[in-house]
Amino acid sequence: MRIFIAEKGLDIETVQIDLGAGEQFGDVFRAINPDCVVPVLQLDNGSCLSEVIAICHYLEARYPEPALLGTSDEERARILMWNCKVEQQGLWSVADAFRNSAKGLQGRALPGMVAYPQIPELAERGRGKLEQFFRRIDDQLADNEFIAGDRFSIADIAAVVVVDFSSWIKLSVPEDAENIQRWYKAVSARPSVAA
Amino acid sequence: MRIFIAEKGLDIETVQIDLGAGEQFGDVFRAINPDCVVPVLQLDNGSCLSEVIAICHYLEARYPEPALLGTSDEERARILMWNCKVEQQGLWSVADAFRNSAKGLQGRALPGMVAYPQIPELAERGRGKLEQFFRRIDDQLADNEFIAGDRFSIADIAAVVVVDFSSWIKLSVPEDAENIQRWYKAVSARPSVAA
Repeated sequence: MRIFIAEKGLDIETVQIDLGAGEQFGDVFRAINPDCVVPVLQLDNGSCLSEVIAICHYLEARYPEPALLGTSDEERARILMWNCKVEQQGLWSVADAFRNSAKGLQGRALPGMVAYPQIPELAERGRGKLEQFFRRIDDQLADNEFIAGDRFSIADIAAVVVVDFSSWIKLSVPEDAENIQRWYKAVSARPSVAA
Repeated sequence: MRIFIAEKGLDIETVQIDLGAGEQFGDVFRAINPDCVVPVLQLDNGSCLSEVIAICHYLEARYPEPALLGTSDEERARILMWNCKVEQQGLWSVADAFRNSAKGLQGRALPGMVAYPQIPELAERGRGKLEQFFRRIDDQLADNEFIAGDRFSIADIAAVVVVDFSSWIKLSVPEDAENIQRWYKAVSARPSVAA
């Protein structure tokens, strides 16, 4: 969300929730999002939106420039498609790998109220899926400047998060994935990402 | 997708892919979607879209009536938010439970090219998450006619799929979940769902 908001040049008041201290499980935050996960956007009318993709759509509708979700019907659908692939194949993979192996997250294999135990095989599967994801994205970036085509979009933001997050599980982009290397160098130099 | 298309009253030519025979892994389908998963929408210009949410957005933009993704900015975001919750908390849970336990899916715990082994703990976790999801949705439906508010939307379609799919793992909506029972009776009577 931070990168998305910076790309839009928006000045949105933010409140940090202390996840380490379990603030997301307190009565105050549960009233805001019963699923106990961040981020949440509070609208001017007081109602709250959770889930990154929903918040991005709302902000894009209110602040269309620069477009991060595409402009034509087909481009919008293609960006949404790639964002979905990056989330499922990349983000969930690295999250599975990290949350099911980190010592500090025992009994916290999933965000939310319920304490699910870690599953070591799921951490292993996450690593495998992440390697597969890097190959998939490298192929895609061979013919495209950005993940979803010729425009920087939310799919790139999600993919940057995957690459950065992957260092937490000591798994990096393969050196021979030249297209990812070229793309990552370009996108990580953007002020919104570098900040 | 079938329910979405029926709600819109669209006449879209469909081609069944024989998943049991592995047609999704053949050269023909891989050229259409390298991730080897259905559904895919082929546009008039020949290009293809995958991922349900992307296809729904494209069809909604082309055929706005009846609106299944909302009309105002806030309603659109709220429907997207709920669709996301239903997918993550409901659909992935029942899919985890089924794919990691069904005898016929050994070595096929995830869709796609790579043969991932089943993880019994993940099947068990999926069942727990699904029970938690039913409680969450029952709460939401106490104050709302439909999942995302007062309009039937893609979030309801996703939730109907979860309920129907849950019978595959012999887990049904709790009898005391009266709000889900009321909602399911109403939505399953819709011509698009009953068909």
